Amino acid sequence: MEGHYIDPKAQVDPSAKIGFGVVIEEDVLIGSNVEIGHNVVIHRGVRVGSNSRVGSNTVLGKMPAASAISATTAANRDLPPLVIGENVTVGALCVIYRGAVLNQCVFVGDLVSIREDVTIGEMTVVGRGVTVENRVTIGKKVKIETEAYITALSTIGDYCFIAPEVTFTNDNFLGRTEERKKHFGGPTLLRGARIGGNATLLPGVQIGEDALVAAGSVVTRDVPAGVIVAGVPARLLRPVPTEQLLQNQAFYDR
Amino acid sequence: MEGHYIDPKAQVDPSAKIGFGVVIEEDVLIGSNVEIGHNVVIHRGVRVGSNSRVGSNTVLGKMPAASAISATTAANRDLPPLVIGENVTVGALCVIYRGAVLNQCVFVGDLVSIREDVTIGEMTVVGRGVTVENRVTIGKKVKIETEAYITALSTIGDYCFIAPEVTFTNDNFLGRTEERKKHFGGPTLLRGARIGGNATLLPGVQIGEDALVAAGSVVTRDVPAGVIVAGVPARLLRPVPTEQLLQNQAFYDR
Amino acid sequence: MEGHYIDPKAQVDPSAKIGFGVVIEEDVLIGSNVEIGHNVVIHRGVRVGSNSRVGSNTVLGKMPAASAISATTAANRDLPPLVIGENVTVGALCVIYRGAVLNQCVFVGDLVSIREDVTIGEMTVVGRGVTVENRVTIGKKVKIETEAYITALSTIGDYCFIAPEVTFTNDNFLGRTEERKKHFGGPTLLRGARIGGNATLLPGVQIGEDALVAAGSVVTRDVPAGVIVAGVPARLLRPVPTEQLLQNQAFYDR
Repeated sequence: MEGHYIDPKAQVDPSAKIGFGVVIEEDVLIGSNVEIGHNVVIHRGVRVGSNSRVGSNTVLGKMPAASAISATTAANRDLPPLVIGENVTVGALCVIYRGAVLNQCVFVGDLVSIREDVTIGEMTVVGRGVTVENRVTIGKKVKIETEAYITALSTIGDYCFIAPEVTFTNDNFLGRTEERKKHFGGPTLLRGARIGGNATLLPGVQIGEDALVAAGSVVTRDVPAGVIVAGVPARLLRPVPTEQLLQNQAFYDR
Repeated sequence: MEGHYIDPKAQVDPSAKIGFGVVIEEDVLIGSNVEIGHNVVIHRGVRVGSNSRVGSNTVLGKMPAASAISATTAANRDLPPLVIGENVTVGALCVIYRGAVLNQCVFVGDLVSIREDVTIGEMTVVGRGVTVENRVTIGKKVKIETEAYITALSTIGDYCFIAPEVTFTNDNFLGRTEERKKHFGGPTLLRGARIGGNATLLPGVQIGEDALVAAGSVVTRDVPAGVIVAGVPARLLRPVPTEQLLQNQAFYDR
Repeated sequence: MEGHYIDPKAQVDPSAKIGFGVVIEEDVLIGSNVEIGHNVVIHRGVRVGSNSRVGSNTVLGKMPAASAISATTAANRDLPPLVIGENVTVGALCVIYRGAVLNQCVFVGDLVSIREDVTIGEMTVVGRGVTVENRVTIGKKVKIETEAYITALSTIGDYCFIAPEVTFTNDNFLGRTEERKKHFGGPTLLRGARIGGNATLLPGVQIGEDALVAAGSVVTRDVPAGVIVAGVPARLLRPVPTEQLLQNQAFYDR
């Protein structure tokens, strides 16, 4: 297939398959056996590792454009290129920014946003329609399900599970006072923490190792390790059943 | 307009209007008076019925790409082609998978995802930004509003109404135990059931005929026919008013 | 870069940068120093003011396509063109309709939908993945955060703040009775009102000046000026702290 634009300063491995209407800007590096769908835009400097696939109409390596009144985005920074590791799958209609790193075997659904200063660990799944804002660290073998919202300045440990439509927040002052800028902070999920469907996490809460937040809960304070909390506001319910603990799962790497 | 790619093995009715930058792969069938926007990608085998319209930058007939750790998506299956009936409207920036069927007069908003093994009944509306995951059956004259999330293995009867930002869930074990794979299941909405804005439905709950879940509720158990439930967790409130029952609506087909 | 289509009846300022695969239809007006990304579709009549930027794969000036059973969208109306003011930023993968007006310095994230009969005041931010439905008025210096849902027939005053995943609703009858069409109405937020993450606002509620709805709340009745409400359903908690009042903010224009 033809009809794409490849900048002369881009390097595309001859084994890569490039769709129709694709735009590849300067200094892009495409590895062996990569498959790029149709109408994909790959901005300058992006690196795509071997055997990775990118869906149609996706935009890779976008530069951030700060709004005049953003409190967490610095404009005109010199970001490192977007790096997509080997065996990564990126869906259709996604936008992934310059300054993000997707490690090997990461899976990204369709219509996903991933911003700058984000690192995603190997074998993690970022579901359909998810937003990962800037300055977020995500571990390995994490599962973030459809339409979940990961706010700026969040940390998600290895093996965490975040159900559909979960909301993370990072500003207790809702845009008011200059003071607030000292207190910004998203939730921190320790290893193996799990968040149920459509739950809401308030700014800066810490969810303990292997803890579980029930669906629809609103978490207003820290949750200890290994317990289930539920409700609005979330209250302690009972311990997580032994058979659901991380150490008893087949996918846990000892 | 010119500048599109049509595979020689595709069949496009001469009355169809095809936008700029469109890619039509092999064995695609486009009926009479169809309108395809710009930069649309139509993967192999898709059928689009007469008088249907597809918005710009949409992707039709995508093959599923299972993540390494998905529990509900089987990779490398031989799916039937995506079938879009007559008089269907599909918005801009959508992705609809191979193995879905959209019956006549279905209306799909912009930025919608519809996955494989999904059937959508005639005259149903799938609103802007909605996700319909795999293995879902949706009846006729259903209305699914903006950003609602329909999880895998859900069933939605005729005439149901699902308000914006509703969350369906299907895994009570949140990704833990092998046992859970026997228990996966989304909600079942019987004929005419209605779900209010931003409500959350737990895995496997059944919402009775003409029942109503109030906005913001978390439904943890089955809801009987014809009643309103509300709260976290949802509790019985009162019967649905007679004038709101399905049998008293002008659009109900007797 | 080349490979785009510009209708002979469009007027593009020679200083504008137009990406690859862009489609510009008739009667479009593009001002000086505008930057248009790749694969952007600009439908007939759109006006883009000087120094504005549009991200890749975005669709501007789409005509509404009413579903057969929509209650708030009139088909085949003669809408005025989409007007994008000066110094506006529009993200990638957005769809903005004919009949919308974005005033100067508006910032629109990626994957945003904005429909017809919408006006957005200057310096307002419409976050990533937000939907603004038809017949909505939004003031100046408003911040609507990621994935919030602004339903049809809503009004948002100057300086309001709407956190991520907030849900507005406009139909207490959830699609039933003809009577309901007289009662449609989204929420009204008076000047400086703030809504916390994942909160739900019922149809027609009015949120008073400088009032604050806590995260995860479900608002079922009007909220007085200057107070915090919280819970399901939301109840009065306490006054908004003085230092958070609008009149005490640096960005407030006296």
